[in-house]
This record gives sequence, structure tokens and C-alpha cells, in this order.
Amino acid sequence: MSTSATDPTGIPDVPIDASGEKLARAASIGHGAPVLAFDVGGTDIKSALFDGDGTALGLRRTPTPAGGAGAPQRLIDRLAELADELRAQHPDVVPQAVGLVVPGIVDEQAGVGVFSSNLGWRDAPIRDLAAERFGLPVAFDHDVRAASWAEHVLGGARSYRNSVVLIIGTGIAGAILIDGRPHTAGGYAGEIGHSPIGEWPCPCGARGCLEAIASAGAISRRYAEASGTDLGGAKEVIALAAAGDATADRIWNEALDALAFSIAQLTAVIAPEAVVIGGGLSRAGGALFDQLNLRLRDRLSFHRIPKLVPAELSGNAGILGSALHAREAASAAGSTA
Amino acid sequence: MSTSATDPTGIPDVPIDASGEKLARAASIGHGAPVLAFDVGGTDIKSALFDGDGTALGLRRTPTPAGGAGAPQRLIDRLAELADELRAQHPDVVPQAVGLVVPGIVDEQAGVGVFSSNLGWRDAPIRDLAAERFGLPVAFDHDVRAASWAEHVLGGARSYRNSVVLIIGTGIAGAILIDGRPHTAGGYAGEIGHSPIGEWPCPCGARGCLEAIASAGAISRRYAEASGTDLGGAKEVIALAAAGDATADRIWNEALDALAFSIAQLTAVIAPEAVVIGGGLSRAGGALFDQLNLRLRDRLSFHRIPKLVPAELSGNAGILGSALHAREAASAAGSTA
Repeated sequence: MSTSATDPTGIPDVPIDASGEKLARAASIGHGAPVLAFDVGGTDIKSALFDGDGTALGLRRTPTPAGGAGAPQRLIDRLAELADELRAQHPDVVPQAVGLVVPGIVDEQAGVGVFSSNLGWRDAPIRDLAAERFGLPVAFDHDVRAASWAEHVLGGARSYRNSVVLIIGTGIAGAILIDGRPHTAGGYAGEIGHSPIGEWPCPCGARGCLEAIASAGAISRRYAEASGTDLGGAKEVIALAAAGDATADRIWNEALDALAFSIAQLTAVIAPEAVVIGGGLSRAGGALFDQLNLRLRDRLSFHRIPKLVPAELSGNAGILGSALHAREAASAAGSTA
Repeated sequence: MSTSATDPTGIPDVPIDASGEKLARAASIGHGAPVLAFDVGGTDIKSALFDGDGTALGLRRTPTPAGGAGAPQRLIDRLAELADELRAQHPDVVPQAVGLVVPGIVDEQAGVGVFSSNLGWRDAPIRDLAAERFGLPVAFDHDVRAASWAEHVLGGARSYRNSVVLIIGTGIAGAILIDGRPHTAGGYAGEIGHSPIGEWPCPCGARGCLEAIASAGAISRRYAEASGTDLGGAKEVIALAAAGDATADRIWNEALDALAFSIAQLTAVIAPEAVVIGGGLSRAGGALFDQLNLRLRDRLSFHRIPKLVPAELSGNAGILGSALHAREAASAAGSTA
């Protein structure tokens, strides 16, 4: 699997080892119960065992099983295999709970994967299937909300009680923290990538969705469509725009205008103290953050313009959030480290 | 004072008695401490004494003192006069707290009127001024947030834990309830009327604000500008659109499109269960609600489309919210009915 298949920026956030060995970057979530944590994506699964010190053991990335009929059960089977391998490698670390985060529309309270086009399920009772298989409490959440929770506890949003985390990669996903708590609205909140701001088509069926013009994936695709040349990622489009290419410049500016538009909406409506931006596109740095700041200041007046803050946990935010939630599940079940 | 000066729909929500007598409609907030309540607007003040049964006594509407230098003190002086008259009329009802709600940008936690163009103040310490004058606990809030709180407790939003209240009149103000609590963000949240969705100018200094195209005031003004004829209110523009007038039809449809656009944004981002619509424009009934529903369904896909619900408390929502907050202040101060 090439990195560009999953990361349209062309900038991998963690090195991928095809043999499924440890990733270079580990992170600590602090002291607590040992837990298993999974971050399931459309193309790969991150898995790790977190010990009592909060260190990720055996952190790896392996392919997600095929979607379609039976996908939920195939996924659970695969997670159990990964768990068995982790336990065999670290027999002294006995997990007390499991964290499991998935993409799509997720009702974390019901424990149900409501819909995922990538994983090919509808109304899949993932949490119950996992709890039955593992015989442990399972914390279940949306991948980006879990990632944003990790950014809130450990990363770029940790200083703010009201923030929005935007993960801009293949798509755009968002998560909203209100008074220090995730605002989920049964899984429907935070769909900033599918907030309709224009008239262009979006595969979701709505018109003018933000992610269809401003995600790293859209920037790369739109440049390829306009120029006939596939540069392979948004990073290359941004570089070409900086070098004076008119088509790249137009597409990058349309993405920036759309992002600024959506952040201006957020500012007027929920007034977050900070918007934390992660995902591949956030690695564009000043080319992204400075331009968004300029556009927000131009666009708004008396509003409280949020701080635009880079996410800090990079591609590991999802599994760290998964582990944090697993710790909460372990605590709720009364277990100790 | 004519009603059309304060109600651009031309449909007064409560009859105005120029002599300042009781208004026809009273309402009960239930049992609790007797309280004084004020709802201060740009042109008039509503005032009442709520007794232990929650009945509004002496509910009246009187002109707001002039803005500009010294406006906060002039306002407090006037409120004290109104309170003295209410107490004299009802010597047996001894208020235990005061509710005071004002428009503009309001930091209700600090008790400060941050900015009001209508009242002409900046950083006015209204709560402390009022508490000193009345010698009673003062609950201080934004007028529309208080109105929406009343809609939440007593009115159209009472069945929902996550809702947005939009008051569409001269301007458009909003208030957001998250998990049953008002989300204020230090007074900056809920500025849906000043969410920028286009490129037209807005007096606030931003571009494309919703209220500059979709408020009752904007509909009336835009028709007058386009046709050279001032019909006096949005109600008349909507009636003319229904009768086939092309200019009225264009302006009304632009307002509906803009409102649907903003509600679609809310739906994707915070996913309220209901959007409760009040203010003069809400009295357009099906011409408003049916059209917004159609547009939302056309615009969105997998999103959870909120119920569009009429507000129920009409023009009294503000003072009812003020009284509800005063009751909370009385409880917090340990007083009893």
C-alpha cells in the first residue's frame, strides 16, 4: 500500500511499515489502566496496547478487511487477531478495556455504526459485537471525534473549553467541543465537511459541500481535472500555486475561500475560542494558517475571531483518542491499573 | 409610537397602549419567588412584576430613554421608576430578585453590556449598576437568549434538548441550546443574523450577513429600494409575492434561500433537533415554514434535518425569560416565595 492512497497530501503523518511492525512515533496517554486501542479507517487499522504508564506498545497499521456484506463481523474477527498478537507479545500487560473508533456516521451512545460508505455498513452494532468478542468493556466512538478528543486532552486544543477540530485530509471531518465536552447530537453534529456552502456537486447527494472543494483530496482532484495533470497530492498543487501557476493558484484560493467561509460561519454561530486544524492539509503551515487568518479578518467585524491552531498529534490522534476513551470505560467498569 | 416603527412585519405581537397600561396578554411562569422583570429593547422597555403564582402584574411597554453618553445610568434610573410604580400598585408582592435583559453583545457572566448600537453603550456594567440601585440580586442576560430560554422552558422548544431559536424581526438574532443549556461563548455565540453567507454589505462591517437579506426589516427595505414603494412591512411584501408581483417574489425568495442556507449550515455543524422560529416573520406561517422545509430537503442529504417549529411566546418571550432568570437568581440567593 502506498502512502498516497490514503494521504492525498503526499505527506505521510507516520511512516508505514508494510510488514506491520511498530511505527516510529509512539505517545503516552499518562498513567491508568492498560487498554487495547483500535482506530479503524477505510483503508487501514491502527492498533496498539497501551500499558499502565500510557505508552503505546506494538503500534502498527494494517489493512482494513473488505467492506460489503458481513463487513462488521470480518472487522471484529480481524481486531481479535490483532489483539491476540499484541497480548502474545506483551503477556505482562493485561488490558482492562478496549477502545474502538470508526469513520462514517456513528451513534456512540447506542454503540452503532449508523453508516459508513468506506466500510460498507448500515446500523452495525459494532460495540456489542466487540464487547462479546473481547469480554471487556468497549468504548466506541467516531474516529475524528476521538481524534479531536485527544487533541483536546493532549494536543492543540488542550487550552480551550470551546473549540472546533477540523481534520482536513481525503475529506474534511469536524468535531465540536462545548464547555469541555464533545457535542455530538447523536452523531450528526460536526459534519463541517458536508456543510453546503456552494452549488457544486458532492458524492453525498447534497450540493456545495465544503470537502468537495477544500479537502486535500478535492484540491488534488480538481487540479488534475482542470489541468489534465495529476500531481499526486495537494502539497504539489500548493507548491505550484506558490510558483505562479494560474490554475493551481485558482484552485488553492477557492479552497482557502471556502475554508474561511465555513470558519466564519462557525465563528458567528458557536464562537469557538480556537479552531484546531489537523490532517494532511494542516502541514501546509503558513500558506494555510496565515491565509485563513487574513480572510477571516477581512470577512468579519465585531465577531470574536477564533485562534487558528495546528493540531499536534498528527495521524496518531485517532488511536490516542481511542485509548483515552478505553481508559474511561475501564474506570467506569471499576478496574484499576 | 407606532407599531410599525418597532415591528417591520406590521403585525404587532402585543397591543401597545400609549398610556403605558397593562398589555392584553399576560402569562404565567409557574410558582416561585416574586420578581421584577425587564426586557429592554432599542425603542421600548417591557416591565412587569411577577407574583408568587407566576402571573405578570402591570405588564407594560414604555419608551427606552435616549442612548449616547450616560445611557446606562439613564436606563437604570428609568427602571427604578418603573419598579417603584409597580411596587406602589402591588404593595403585597415583594420582589426577591430582578431580571434584566438587553440587546447587543452581552457578557452575561461578567454582567456587562459589551456593545449595543441601539442603546449606545460599550462595556457598560449594567448588572452591578442595577444591583446597587435595587438592592436585590440581578439576573442579567441577552434579550434573545432570554427569550429563547423562555421558549425552551415554556414554549416551542420545550420538548428538545438541542435546539436553535431564531428570532426574525427588525434583525435576526439566534440562541443555541446544547444538552439543555444555553451555549453563549461569553456572549459571542448565536450571531446567526451576522453569519456571513454572501457578498452584500451589512451595517455591522462584515459582508453578506443573513439579517441584511432575510430579516423582516431587510425584506421590507429591499422591496422599497427595488420598487420605489414602501409597503410598510415584510407581511405586505410576502402578500404581494403571493399575488404574483415579480419584484416581491424575487426578494421573498432570496430571503427564503438565505434562511434555508443558514439553517442547512446549522444542521451540518451542530445538528439541532429543532429550529424554533419566532419574531414577526414567523407569523408568515406556511409561506415561511413550508418553503424552508422544501429548501432544506432539496439542499441536504444524509443530514438530520431539524424540525422547524414556531415559537409560542410571541413578543413576551423576552420578559418571560427575564423573569425565569430572576427566579433563578432569587433561588441562588436563598430567598423563598
